[in-house]
Amino acid sequence: MSGFEFESLEKTLEKYIPENELTEVKRILFGNPTKNLELHSSAEIVASERDFELQGHAFQSAPEQLRASRRVRVGLIQNRTVLPTDAPILDQISAAHSRIAELVEVAAMCDVNIVCFQETWTMPFAFCTREKEPWSEFAESAEDGPTTRFCQELAKKYNMVIVSPILEREALHNTLWNTAVVISNSGQVLGKTRKNHIPRIGDFNESTYYMEGNTGHKVFQTQFGKIAVNICYGRHHPLNWLMYSMNGAEIIFNPSATVGALSEPMWSIEARNAAIANHCYTCAINRVGTEHFKNEFTSGDGKKAHHDFGHFYGSSYVSAPDGSRSPGLSRTRDGLLVVELDLNMNRQISDKWSFKMTGRYAEYASELAKVVSEDFKPNIVKE
Amino acid sequence: MSGFEFESLEKTLEKYIPENELTEVKRILFGNPTKNLELHSSAEIVASERDFELQGHAFQSAPEQLRASRRVRVGLIQNRTVLPTDAPILDQISAAHSRIAELVEVAAMCDVNIVCFQETWTMPFAFCTREKEPWSEFAESAEDGPTTRFCQELAKKYNMVIVSPILEREALHNTLWNTAVVISNSGQVLGKTRKNHIPRIGDFNESTYYMEGNTGHKVFQTQFGKIAVNICYGRHHPLNWLMYSMNGAEIIFNPSATVGALSEPMWSIEARNAAIANHCYTCAINRVGTEHFKNEFTSGDGKKAHHDFGHFYGSSYVSAPDGSRSPGLSRTRDGLLVVELDLNMNRQISDKWSFKMTGRYAEYASELAKVVSEDFKPNIVKE
Repeated sequence: MSGFEFESLEKTLEKYIPENELTEVKRILFGNPTKNLELHSSAEIVASERDFELQGHAFQSAPEQLRASRRVRVGLIQNRTVLPTDAPILDQISAAHSRIAELVEVAAMCDVNIVCFQETWTMPFAFCTREKEPWSEFAESAEDGPTTRFCQELAKKYNMVIVSPILEREALHNTLWNTAVVISNSGQVLGKTRKNHIPRIGDFNESTYYMEGNTGHKVFQTQFGKIAVNICYGRHHPLNWLMYSMNGAEIIFNPSATVGALSEPMWSIEARNAAIANHCYTCAINRVGTEHFKNEFTSGDGKKAHHDFGHFYGSSYVSAPDGSRSPGLSRTRDGLLVVELDLNMNRQISDKWSFKMTGRYAEYASELAKVVSEDFKPNIVKE
Repeated sequence: MSGFEFESLEKTLEKYIPENELTEVKRILFGNPTKNLELHSSAEIVASERDFELQGHAFQSAPEQLRASRRVRVGLIQNRTVLPTDAPILDQISAAHSRIAELVEVAAMCDVNIVCFQETWTMPFAFCTREKEPWSEFAESAEDGPTTRFCQELAKKYNMVIVSPILEREALHNTLWNTAVVISNSGQVLGKTRKNHIPRIGDFNESTYYMEGNTGHKVFQTQFGKIAVNICYGRHHPLNWLMYSMNGAEIIFNPSATVGALSEPMWSIEARNAAIANHCYTCAINRVGTEHFKNEFTSGDGKKAHHDFGHFYGSSYVSAPDGSRSPGLSRTRDGLLVVELDLNMNRQISDKWSFKMTGRYAEYASELAKVVSEDFKPNIVKE
C-alpha cells in the first residue's frame, strides 16, 4: 500500500474534479446522489470534541399511495482500539465500552434507530498472532456477558437497536464463536447470529480460534425493520447474502475487520453488489487504524517477523437496492455514519428489476445439489 | 442522464487528479494496476482509420514452478449499429458483418485468441418497440445461419475463438432464443448457450420475444481455456455466475445491451463482483450509441411516446479474480479492448482466498431447496 496518507476517495474526487464532470463521475461511481442529512449542530460539536468524524446522508425514495414511507436511521460506527494491545484485558474492554458510549450518545443525538459496531469490537483483531492467550479471554457470553449487559443499558436508554459483534464463549461446550448479538430497543437480547464463513487467508487465522457458524441465516424483526448480520468474510459469499434476503432481511449489516493491501479494491464492490442483487440495504463496517502486538509474528508470506497486521482502512458505507451508495467514512479516523433510508425502496426496486421473480431458484437448488455430490460431472463441451 | 458528453471515467480521473493521489484513487477503484499492452503500430493505425478505439492492457500474475503461464488474449468488441433501423434487414445484417470484419481483423493483428461481440450483435436492440415484425426476421439458425457461417470463416481465417451472440430461431419448434454461438478457432461450431434470465424491466421487453434459456450452464473447452457466456441480464444473478464457475469456466463473457439512466452505476459492480466471488475472469461488453426507431413507442413510465431506447454507454471492461479490473472502453465510440490475462491467476487467487473451499455449498443447496418450497417459513426472530 502506498505510504501516502489517503483520507478518502470521495474527498479527493471533490477536491480536483470540476463540478459538471464531478456530477457524472459520481453518478457512474455511486449512483443516484444521496441527500445531505441535517444533523443537530450539538451532535457535530460533540463529535468534534470527541475527535471522530460524523457524516449524515439520506437515500431518496419515492412516495407510495398505500404505504407510508418507512424511514429508518442506521448508524455505522468504526473506531480504533483505544488502549495498547498489551494493557490488562479488563482495561481494554472498559476503554472500548467508554469509547463506544461516546459514539452511541452522538448517534442518539442524531436520532439513530439501529446502530452496528465493528467485528469483535471489544478487542484488538489479534488472530494474526495465532496466540490463544490472552486473546481467548476476551470471549464473553452472548446472552449475559458484560458487553451484552452494557449494550442492553445503552439500547434501553436511547431506544435504539444495537448490533454488537463480539468474540463469544459458549460455556456449556466451551466453544468460541464469532458472533453478533442483536439487542432490541427495549433492552432485551433479541438473539445472536454467528459468522457463517471463516477466512483461510493471510493473517486472518480465525479458523484457529472458532468454527463456521451454526445459526443459519436468522433475520431479526425489530421495531425499525427486519435486519440480519453477515459478519466480515461472509461478504465474499453471494449465497450468504442471498439467504439472509430470502429470510426477509431488509437491512444486512456487515461488521468487518479488513486491511488495505489485501481487500481494499474489493471493499466497495461486494456489499454493494449484494444490495443490488438482493433488493435490500447493506451496511459495510470496517475498523480503522493499525494495531501493534508485543510479540512478533510471521504472516506466512516469507517476510520477516513483525508486530502489526496492517492498516484497517475504515471506509464504512451503506448501499441501497437501487445501486446507489452513501459516501464512505474516512480511511483513518474513528467515525459515525448516519444514513436515513426508506425501507419501502426495497419493494419498489424489486417491483422494478424483479430479480427475485426471475431468479429461477428451484433450478439452482437442484443444480447446486448436484454440484456438491461426489460424482458431479461438469457440463463441458469439447470439440 | 446528464447531457454532458462524458467520454470515460478513467480519462476524467487522469485529467484532473495529481499523480501521487491518482495512484491511490486507482488502487482503491480498480485494484492492482494493469500493464499497458504494446500492440502492433499497424493495428493502431488501422483502428484509427476505421474510427474505433483500440486499447491494450495486461493483468499481472505470478510465475509458478510446475505450470507455465497460460497467457490468453481476449478481445471485447463494442459497436454502434451501422445502418438506420429501417434499412432493409439484409442490408443491416450485411453492414453489421462488414463492420465486425473490420474490428476482428484488427483483433487478429493484436494476436487476440478469443473475441466476443455484443448481445444480438446483428440487429438493433429493437425489443423496446414490442413490435414482432420486422425484428423477428433477424433471428437465424445458431448452427448454420448466415451469421454463424460468417463467423466460422473469420474464426478459421484468424485462428480465433469467436463468441457470437445472436437472436436465434430454432426451426423445429419455431421458437426464438437469445443465444450465444461459440465457434472454435478451427471454424467448427462448438455449441450454443442461451440467456438464462430474461429481464422484466423498462423497455427491455424481451420476455415478449423469447423465454428463459434451457441450456443450463455449459462451459466450452477451447484451445485457449474454458469459457462460458452469461448473457446480459444474467449478470444480475450471482447464482448464474456461480454455476458457470462450478462447471469449470475460467473466463465468463457477459455480452450485454444496457442503457445509462437505468444501469450504469451497477455496470462496474456486478461482473467484477462475479470475478472476485468465483475466482475467474469476467468480460462485460455493452453496445454503444443511440438507436432510433421509425414508429414511436411508450416506455411504461407515463411519459410521452418517443423513438429511441436511450444511450448505450459502452464501457466494456475485463475483471480479474484478484479484484482488479482493466480500464473501460469509451462510453460513446466503437471499440476493441484487447486484454492479456494469465489463466493461472484463477487457481492462484483461489488458493489464496479459498472461497470455493469455504463456500458451504452443501448447506446452501439444502437451504435453497427449502426456500423454493411452497411451505417455506422464513427464519425470523421476534421479541
